[in-house]
Amino acid sequence: MDLKSHIESIPGYPKEGVIFRDITPILSNPEALEQTANDIASFAKEVGATHILAPEARGFMFGIPAAIAAKLPFVPVRKPGKLPRAVIEETYELEYGVDHLQMHADALTKGSKVLIVDDLLATGGTVKAIANLVRRCESEVVGYAFVVELDDLHGRDKLGDAPMLSLVHYEGE
Amino acid sequence: MDLKSHIESIPGYPKEGVIFRDITPILSNPEALEQTANDIASFAKEVGATHILAPEARGFMFGIPAAIAAKLPFVPVRKPGKLPRAVIEETYELEYGVDHLQMHADALTKGSKVLIVDDLLATGGTVKAIANLVRRCESEVVGYAFVVELDDLHGRDKLGDAPMLSLVHYEGE
Repeated sequence: MDLKSHIESIPGYPKEGVIFRDITPILSNPEALEQTANDIASFAKEVGATHILAPEARGFMFGIPAAIAAKLPFVPVRKPGKLPRAVIEETYELEYGVDHLQMHADALTKGSKVLIVDDLLATGGTVKAIANLVRRCESEVVGYAFVVELDDLHGRDKLGDAPMLSLVHYEGE
Repeated sequence: MDLKSHIESIPGYPKEGVIFRDITPILSNPEALEQTANDIASFAKEVGATHILAPEARGFMFGIPAAIAAKLPFVPVRKPGKLPRAVIEETYELEYGVDHLQMHADALTKGSKVLIVDDLLATGGTVKAIANLVRRCESEVVGYAFVVELDDLHGRDKLGDAPMLSLVHYEGE
């Protein structure tokens, strides 16, 4: 399957000089979406993951069906004020200012092996914050899976040595 | 499967006097999550849906795997500033103030038959706004599916005659 044909590139969104990679056409095509989830699920098995973890909201789109396909528990990572039980939080830097991500404190038991899933790897700030949440639970990030990787932003360099799956790459286009 | 045993009730969240129904334990259990998705997918077939539509972020958790299981296209409904192409928008009332929901303007072709999915039916304001988006595309809401329905809030009364699936009910508990 040519997954790239199900991604639309939108120049100038959300601002001048940026090309937004829109994954919503994947969602419109159940075969493409299922294949994407299955590819991530196979990778989860390959790296020995015990849990799949993804941030809201686009991460859920791929992390959830991958977790079902891999028969693994799914752990949501959310913005503050969304998770009702005790949470742990990480703060990470944006281009201007900071943002926060939370996970239920009891979501991972010690020694869990986590695959982190997101729709897109850009500079890697969000994903690095999620990896910190995992480590604070005395658990291990055994892999990363992305639908899209923006190669020229070098997010990969922030994420250490764990195996990484990126289904589609864009480089300075 | 006793789905209710995978829902945790949190009294006093997000404020005094409210009991929050936390569906994250369903996500921790791949069998429960898959069964939930399959039940919604069967209902989608039963009502003759051509599209499954759900709002961020918890709606994605169930709408996406249901769409894969039913082999139907999935359409995301999002808060403003998240969808990169031309959108249509609905405004709806919250307890204090208003909120907005958007959908890509080309997401539904005329005559589409839509199943609207969300994690929880409370007062029905969000879901009614989504139904308006569907109708503005000259499409039809052929059903609603919820994991949880809070019976005593009577959201159901706002939603007209389309068939409704609610997998778990709570009434004044």
